[in-house]
Amino acid sequence: MNANDTPLLAGTRQAQVLRWRDAQRSEVLDWLADEVPVALEFNGISHAVMLATPTDLEDFALGFALSEGILDRPDDLFDCETDVCAEGLTVRLEVSSRSFARLKDHRRTLAGRTGCGICGTESLAQVLRDVPAVQGAALRLHAAAIDHAMESMRARQLLGRATGATHGAAWCAANGDVILLREDVGRHNALDKLIGAMVRVGVDARTGFIVVTSRASVEMVQKAATAGAPLLAAVSAPTFLALEAAQRAGMTLVGLARQGDLVAYAHPQRLLFDREN
Amino acid sequence: MNANDTPLLAGTRQAQVLRWRDAQRSEVLDWLADEVPVALEFNGISHAVMLATPTDLEDFALGFALSEGILDRPDDLFDCETDVCAEGLTVRLEVSSRSFARLKDHRRTLAGRTGCGICGTESLAQVLRDVPAVQGAALRLHAAAIDHAMESMRARQLLGRATGATHGAAWCAANGDVILLREDVGRHNALDKLIGAMVRVGVDARTGFIVVTSRASVEMVQKAATAGAPLLAAVSAPTFLALEAAQRAGMTLVGLARQGDLVAYAHPQRLLFDREN
Repeated sequence: MNANDTPLLAGTRQAQVLRWRDAQRSEVLDWLADEVPVALEFNGISHAVMLATPTDLEDFALGFALSEGILDRPDDLFDCETDVCAEGLTVRLEVSSRSFARLKDHRRTLAGRTGCGICGTESLAQVLRDVPAVQGAALRLHAAAIDHAMESMRARQLLGRATGATHGAAWCAANGDVILLREDVGRHNALDKLIGAMVRVGVDARTGFIVVTSRASVEMVQKAATAGAPLLAAVSAPTFLALEAAQRAGMTLVGLARQGDLVAYAHPQRLLFDREN
Repeated sequence: MNANDTPLLAGTRQAQVLRWRDAQRSEVLDWLADEVPVALEFNGISHAVMLATPTDLEDFALGFALSEGILDRPDDLFDCETDVCAEGLTVRLEVSSRSFARLKDHRRTLAGRTGCGICGTESLAQVLRDVPAVQGAALRLHAAAIDHAMESMRARQLLGRATGATHGAAWCAANGDVILLREDVGRHNALDKLIGAMVRVGVDARTGFIVVTSRASVEMVQKAATAGAPLLAAVSAPTFLALEAAQRAGMTLVGLARQGDLVAYAHPQRLLFDREN
């Protein structure tokens, strides 16, 4: 058994690398993020293959199925198992016949309109799909709580700190305490894992907010809105399409949340700025 | 005509936002990265839809077709036109019947194996596809050239500096001078745009290297290898799968290239460290 078979931290692999630091060369053992093809199979039918970090895969599968609208409630997922094959991992989901019928209809429609997609494919209509209006009208957050959440998330990203190659997504209470955190080499995957974990734990999505270490593209807003989060805060900036989606969903969209500063791009009414100079 | 119709910088949109900085609140006009659904159509058949920044779309389409193996040489692309529709943009490519036959075969195989994918889908086999061995065995690069390239790329990322939401990919001469730079909200898209531009300009890929502002996942290595780049340098770290792909392709893989430091993850023989303390 070599070092690669016994990672100290799930989702990592070790490799010998050449480090050049402060004009000194050294050979060191480094930790790298693991990235494997993960196939999602619904009732025996392969649906999608994504490159993901092989941790929290049941959260990932459930979160993906919910945030992509394949399931509209967690009860429609009956079983979830992960198998290893030579090429990667397969997560087999057993879903209700209602959900499976909808998935088949959806695929038939897509096949007619855009052909069979093989790479990053979604239909134009699906990309611009409407997202549900978020709840949490009463939620009020101090700007300092978002700063606290960002700091706490950074401190708790074990995979990110070990590898420098993963994104994080966290569910936070209104005071900014990090309740749940998930990590992945892909930012969409990290958010899907978080959404799955939120549903499994049974959090009330109206009472807190989601923070992510990445940019906020339109798909991140769509996923967070489907999970019911009234506020999404990103370390980097959103795109214009993400801003429009957040405006329509009634979601507070915060970007460039760094060192106490932030920018509110949509629905700033949930934010309190009580330490104004 | 409102402000959104007249961007000063292509690929951006303006929006009124609430900025909280140094405990001071202000309403400001901000620049956001534009993100639109872009459908790629080959000989009248819709193939894939991606969210992208609507700049350099002909580079994008050509680079995507080459790096995904739809075209194996640029001469197989006869024509490329972009149309605007209500839902986004459609780039229509006319390709040789040879390429189109291969694309149809490929899609038929995929449809049989993984069903019709609708979301981030690739087959397990495609994800782990072999990449060509890169040339450029004689290339030698000073570590300082990579640092110079990173600095130059950062200075020239107009979209990135304006919006804080885009990635950059640059083609650099062996001395680190940036020759070509492309930007996009997606890191894969930025690299595809760069690869398309490299082919259109006719650079000799054996003579320089590619730098990217993102992490190096396996798909980034696959794309860069297909373009023939002997070295890929990333600001962040690679994944383990990316390291393995670079090892197989004979590509020098550099990560964490920041402030003169770097880590070589595969094939360090092309690097010169001549200022060692």
